[in-house]
Amino acid sequence: MANSRVAVVFGSDSDWPVMQKCVQQLEQFDISVHVEVMSAHRTPARVMEYADTAAKEGIEVIIAGAGMAAALPGVVAAHTTLPVIGVPLVSGSLGGVDALLSIAQMPPGVPVACVGVDSAGAKNAALLAIQFLAVKDEKLAKAYAHFRANQADGVRKKNEKLQHQLGT
Amino acid sequence: MANSRVAVVFGSDSDWPVMQKCVQQLEQFDISVHVEVMSAHRTPARVMEYADTAAKEGIEVIIAGAGMAAALPGVVAAHTTLPVIGVPLVSGSLGGVDALLSIAQMPPGVPVACVGVDSAGAKNAALLAIQFLAVKDEKLAKAYAHFRANQADGVRKKNEKLQHQLGT
Amino acid sequence: MANSRVAVVFGSDSDWPVMQKCVQQLEQFDISVHVEVMSAHRTPARVMEYADTAAKEGIEVIIAGAGMAAALPGVVAAHTTLPVIGVPLVSGSLGGVDALLSIAQMPPGVPVACVGVDSAGAKNAALLAIQFLAVKDEKLAKAYAHFRANQADGVRKKNEKLQHQLGT
Amino acid sequence: MANSRVAVVFGSDSDWPVMQKCVQQLEQFDISVHVEVMSAHRTPARVMEYADTAAKEGIEVIIAGAGMAAALPGVVAAHTTLPVIGVPLVSGSLGGVDALLSIAQMPPGVPVACVGVDSAGAKNAALLAIQFLAVKDEKLAKAYAHFRANQADGVRKKNEKLQHQLGT
Amino acid sequence: MANSRVAVVFGSDSDWPVMQKCVQQLEQFDISVHVEVMSAHRTPARVMEYADTAAKEGIEVIIAGAGMAAALPGVVAAHTTLPVIGVPLVSGSLGGVDALLSIAQMPPGVPVACVGVDSAGAKNAALLAIQFLAVKDEKLAKAYAHFRANQADGVRKKNEKLQHQLGT
Amino acid sequence: MANSRVAVVFGSDSDWPVMQKCVQQLEQFDISVHVEVMSAHRTPARVMEYADTAAKEGIEVIIAGAGMAAALPGVVAAHTTLPVIGVPLVSGSLGGVDALLSIAQMPPGVPVACVGVDSAGAKNAALLAIQFLAVKDEKLAKAYAHFRANQADGVRKKNEKLQHQLGT
Amino acid sequence: MANSRVAVVFGSDSDWPVMQKCVQQLEQFDISVHVEVMSAHRTPARVMEYADTAAKEGIEVIIAGAGMAAALPGVVAAHTTLPVIGVPLVSGSLGGVDALLSIAQMPPGVPVACVGVDSAGAKNAALLAIQFLAVKDEKLAKAYAHFRANQADGVRKKNEKLQHQLGT
Amino acid sequence: MANSRVAVVFGSDSDWPVMQKCVQQLEQFDISVHVEVMSAHRTPARVMEYADTAAKEGIEVIIAGAGMAAALPGVVAAHTTLPVIGVPLVSGSLGGVDALLSIAQMPPGVPVACVGVDSAGAKNAALLAIQFLAVKDEKLAKAYAHFRANQADGVRKKNEKLQHQLGT
Repeated sequence: MANSRVAVVFGSDSDWPVMQKCVQQLEQFDISVHVEVMSAHRTPARVMEYADTAAKEGIEVIIAGAGMAAALPGVVAAHTTLPVIGVPLVSGSLGGVDALLSIAQMPPGVPVACVGVDSAGAKNAALLAIQFLAVKDEKLAKAYAHFRANQADGVRKKNEKLQHQLGT
Repeated sequence: MANSRVAVVFGSDSDWPVMQKCVQQLEQFDISVHVEVMSAHRTPARVMEYADTAAKEGIEVIIAGAGMAAALPGVVAAHTTLPVIGVPLVSGSLGGVDALLSIAQMPPGVPVACVGVDSAGAKNAALLAIQFLAVKDEKLAKAYAHFRANQADGVRKKNEKLQHQLGT
Repeated sequence: MANSRVAVVFGSDSDWPVMQKCVQQLEQFDISVHVEVMSAHRTPARVMEYADTAAKEGIEVIIAGAGMAAALPGVVAAHTTLPVIGVPLVSGSLGGVDALLSIAQMPPGVPVACVGVDSAGAKNAALLAIQFLAVKDEKLAKAYAHFRANQADGVRKKNEKLQHQLGT
Repeated sequence: MANSRVAVVFGSDSDWPVMQKCVQQLEQFDISVHVEVMSAHRTPARVMEYADTAAKEGIEVIIAGAGMAAALPGVVAAHTTLPVIGVPLVSGSLGGVDALLSIAQMPPGVPVACVGVDSAGAKNAALLAIQFLAVKDEKLAKAYAHFRANQADGVRKKNEKLQHQLGT
Repeated sequence: MANSRVAVVFGSDSDWPVMQKCVQQLEQFDISVHVEVMSAHRTPARVMEYADTAAKEGIEVIIAGAGMAAALPGVVAAHTTLPVIGVPLVSGSLGGVDALLSIAQMPPGVPVACVGVDSAGAKNAALLAIQFLAVKDEKLAKAYAHFRANQADGVRKKNEKLQHQLGT
Repeated sequence: MANSRVAVVFGSDSDWPVMQKCVQQLEQFDISVHVEVMSAHRTPARVMEYADTAAKEGIEVIIAGAGMAAALPGVVAAHTTLPVIGVPLVSGSLGGVDALLSIAQMPPGVPVACVGVDSAGAKNAALLAIQFLAVKDEKLAKAYAHFRANQADGVRKKNEKLQHQLGT
Repeated sequence: MANSRVAVVFGSDSDWPVMQKCVQQLEQFDISVHVEVMSAHRTPARVMEYADTAAKEGIEVIIAGAGMAAALPGVVAAHTTLPVIGVPLVSGSLGGVDALLSIAQMPPGVPVACVGVDSAGAKNAALLAIQFLAVKDEKLAKAYAHFRANQADGVRKKNEKLQHQLGT
Repeated sequence: MANSRVAVVFGSDSDWPVMQKCVQQLEQFDISVHVEVMSAHRTPARVMEYADTAAKEGIEVIIAGAGMAAALPGVVAAHTTLPVIGVPLVSGSLGGVDALLSIAQMPPGVPVACVGVDSAGAKNAALLAIQFLAVKDEKLAKAYAHFRANQADGVRKKNEKLQHQLGT
C-alpha cells in the first residue's frame, strides 16, 4: 500500500464488510488505499502514531469508520492536519444514530466530514475523497465526471426497465 | 469576489449571523470567498446555474448552510462535481436535528460532507475546506498547522487562567 | 401514459415495491398515472425538466417518494406550481425518520404535503390526490365516498369475523 | 364567512397567533376563509358536525392545526371526504415532534396532508391549499405563479442587500 | 358479552394478537370483556356511538389499542366520561414511538391512561383496569393481591432455577 | 389530610408548581388529597412505607410526579396494589422525554397509568383519578360530566370571542 | 457465591443471555460473583433487603441490568451506599433507548454508573467494576493492564489477518 | 493539587460552571481534586500524557466532562487503566443527547461510567467517585452514609415545609 493517497481505517474487522465498499469505490478510480484496523479506544497509540505520520507518508485524505461512541474519526482528526471523513456504522441497537451524532457533532476547531450511516455513507466517503482530490487532479476530475454521468445513465436505464415492465 | 476559491451559500439572510462565522474563518486564512443567498426551494434555477458554473469560475469547494428540510447542500452537490460541505442550521423547534438528517443522510452516489449543527458546524465547515485545499497548497498547510497549534495554546491558556482562579 | 392526471416519481427502482401500492390505489379510481424513476441527486436535470413541464402535460398532482435525505418531493415542488405529495420511504437504518423530517420540514413558501412513512403513506398519497381531484370532479367524489364506505364495511366485517372466532 | 372555500380550524385560541399566519396567507390570495375554534377532544360533536357538513357548505379544503396528541386533523378527515391539511403545533416541551408524528402517521385509508411544524407549516398549509385549488382555477394559478416569482425576487433582493453590506 | 365490565377495542384485526393478551389477562380475573374492532379514522361513527353508550351498558373501563397516529383512545375518551386506557401498538417502522406520543400527550382536560408499547402494555392495561375496579370490589382486590404475590413467586422461582443451573 | 381518597406525591418541592395544578384540579371536585414530598431515590424507605399503608389509610388512587429517571411512580406501584398514575415532569435538558419513557415503559405485571408531560399531564392525572373514582360514585360522576360540559362550553366561548375579534 | 466481591442482578431470566457476558468477564478476572434474579417492580422487598445487606456480605460493587423503565439500578442505589453500575438492556421495540435514559438520568444525589446498551454494556460493566476494584488491589490492577494489552494485541492481529487477506 | 485522589478534566473553560459543581461536591468530602482544562480534539497530546501518568501521580478516579461529540471521557479511558466517569454536557442545540450517546455507547473493552446530563450528572459523578473510593476507605464510607442520611433529611424537611405551607 505504498504510495497510497487515501487511508481507510476502522476499529474492528467486523466493520470490514461495510468499509470494503468504500475501498472498492476508491479502487474503481485507481486510487491506492491504505487499509488498517486500528481502534481509538483499544489501540490509541497506534491511531495517534498513524495520524501523526500519515501526511508524511503521502496520504492526502483519511476515511475513518466507527460505530457506537465512534471516536475514531475525531481522534484521528485531532492528531493530523489532513482532512478526515467519518463514516457512522450501525453497531448495537440504536440504528447508528449514536455514531452519527458522535461523528457529526465535532466541537469547533477540529472538523470531521460526516457522511451517511453505514453502506451509503461508506460509498459516499470514497466519492467525497475523490471529489476533493480531483480539485487539483484533472484526470481524476474527468473520471469522476464520467462516473456521475454513468450514474445518471443508470437511473435512466432503471426507468426504462420499469417502463418496459409497465408496458408503457 | 473574483478569484474566490470557496463559495458560501445559504437560503436566507436570516442564516447570515451563523454563516458569517464560516466566512470569517475562511478570511482569516486569506481565502477569498464568494458569498451568495440562494434557495434550493425558492430560487432553484439560480442554485442550479451557480452549481453548474462554479467550477469554471475557479471555485474549489462549496459550503452550503441550510435549516429544516435543508436541501441546499444536496441540490448543489447534484449539479456540480465540486466537493460540497453542508452546515445544518437550527430553524424552527427541532433543534436542527431535521437539518442534520437531511444533510447527512445523502443517498449513495452524491456525497455531501456534513459538519455539526449551527455555529460549531459553520466554523468547522471553513476549517474542513481549508484542510482539503491545504493538501496541494503548502503555504495554506503551514497556516492551518499554525492555527491548530495556536488553538492548542488557547486551551492551555484557558487552563492556566482557571488554575490561577483556583489558586493552584 | 398520455392524459395522465397524476405523476408518481421516485429515485430508484428499489422504491417500486412500496410506490406500486400508490399507483395501484390510483388506478383503482381509473386515474391514469405517469410513473417515472428520476433522482433529485443523480438525475437532477430530468427532475427539473419534468417538474417544469408536468403542468403543461396535463398533470394535476405530483406524488414523489424518497428515502434518507429525501430531497425529491421538495425539489419537484421548487420547479412546479402543481401540488406535490411526498412519501417518506424507509431506507437504511433509521426507520424512515430521516425521510419524514426531510419531507415534512419544508421551509415556508414552498409546501409539500407529507404523508406517513412507507406503505401506509404510499397508499394515503394516492387517496389524498384523489380527494383533491374530487373537489372539482363529481364522479370521482362519488367513487371516493364509495371507497370510504366500503372501507368502513371492511372494518365491520373484520369485527364480525373476530366475534365469530370469539364465539360471541 | 359565507362562501368560504377553505376552513381553518384549531383546538384553542392559544393556537391563533400561529394559525393566523395561515389565514392571512389565504386572504392574500382573496380566498374567503371559515375560521373556527373546535377541539377533537373537548368538543368532538362540533368537530364531527362541522366535518360532516363542510362539503355541502362549499368548503373545498380543511386546514386543521393541533399540538401534542394532535388528533384534530385526523378526526376531521375521518368525518369528511374533503382533503385535510394538518399543521403540527408546538405545545409543551417536546418541540412539536409529538404533533408531527400524530399528524403524519395516519393509518392507510384516511389521509392527512402534513406540513412542517408551527409557523412554517401554517404558512405552507395555506399555500398547499392554494395549489390544489389552483389546479381548476386559472386565475388562482396565475396568482400563485406570481407569488412564487415574487418570492424568488425576495431571495434575490436579500442577496443584493447582503452583497451591498459586504461591499462586493 | 352482556354484563361486560371492561371493553377492549382496537382498529384492525391485525392488532388482535397483541390485544388478545389484554383480554386473556382480564379473563383470568373473571372479568367479562366486550371486544370490538372499531376504527377512529375508518368507522368514526361507530366509535362515537359505542363510546357514548358504553357507560349505560355497564362498561366501567375502556381499553383502546392503536398504532401509528393512534387516535382511538383519545377519540373514545372525547365521547365518554368513563376512564380510558390506551395501548400504543407497533405499526410501521418507528417502533411504536409514534403511537406512544399520540396516546400519552393528550391535551389538558381529556385524559387517557397510557401504558407501555405493545405486549407489555397490553397486559398492563388489563392489570391497571383490574386495579381500578378492585378499589370498590374486595373480591377482585384479593384476586389481584394474589396475582401479585404469585408474580413475585415467579421471580423467585426463576432465580432458583438459575441458581441451580449455575450450581450454586 | 385525613380521609383523603387520592394521594399526590413527588420527589422535590421544585416539582410543586406543576403538581399543584393536579391537587387544585382534584380539590375542585371536593376530593380530599394527601400531598407529600417523598423520593424514590433519596427517601426510599418512606416511599415503601407510604405505598404499603396507603390502601389501609383509605387512599384509592396514588398520583406520582417525577422527572428524569422518574422511578417514583413505578416504585410506588411495586409496593401497593392501588392504581398508580404517573406524571412525567420536565427536569434537565431533554424536555421530559426521559421521564415519559421511564414512566410509560413499565415491565409487564406492574402497571402505571402514564399521562402527558408536565402541566397538561398534572391536570389530566387528576381528571383520570376522578374518572376512575366516579365509576362507583354517582355524585362524582355527575360533577365530572358537568366539568366536561363546561369545558366544551369554554371552547365554544373561545370561538365566539375569536369570531367577535375577526368581525364575523 | 460466598465471599463474592461483585453482585450481578437483573429482573428476569430472559436477561441472562446478555448479563451472562458480564459474569463471564468478571470470572475471567477470578472475581467471585453473586448472581441473582430480582425485580424492582415484582419483588421490591427482596431488592431492598439485598441492597441493604450487600455491603455487610462483603459485596463491593453491584451491577444491575434492566430493560424498559429499568428502575432496578436506581432502586438498588437508593438502598445501598455501595457503587452501582447499570446496564440498559434491549426489551420491547425502542432499541433500549428507554432503558438508557431510565438509567443514565438519575436525579442529583443518588448516582448510577451507566454503561452502553446490551452486550457491549454488559461486558463493560464488568470491566468498570474491575477498574474500580483494582485501584486498591495491585494484583487485579496487573491483571487488568494485561487484559488491556491483550485486547490491543487482538486488534493488531485482526489487522494482520485483514492485511493477509488483502494481500498487502 | 498534589496528593489529589480524583481528577476533574474538561475541554473548555465554558464547561467550568457545570463541572465546578462536581469539584465542590468532592471537596465537601475533603477529597483533593486535580482540575485541568484539556481537550481530546484540541490538545490530544496533553490528554494522552495526563491519562498515561495519572495513576502514577496517585489519581484513583478520573472524571471527564464533555459536550457534543464528547470524546474526552473515552479518550482518557483509552490511555489509562484507571476508572473514568463521563459527564455529558449540554452544548449546542441538541440538549446533550449527542454527548450522552457519545459517552454511554462505549465499545466493549474500554468502559466509561456515564452519569446524567449536565448539573445533575456533574454532582453525581462526584458522588459515584466517592462511593468507589469509600469501598476501601472506612472514614469516607461513613461520611458518604452521613451525606445520604442528610439528603434524606432534606427531603423530609422539604415535605414539612410544604405541609406547613398547605396548612396541614
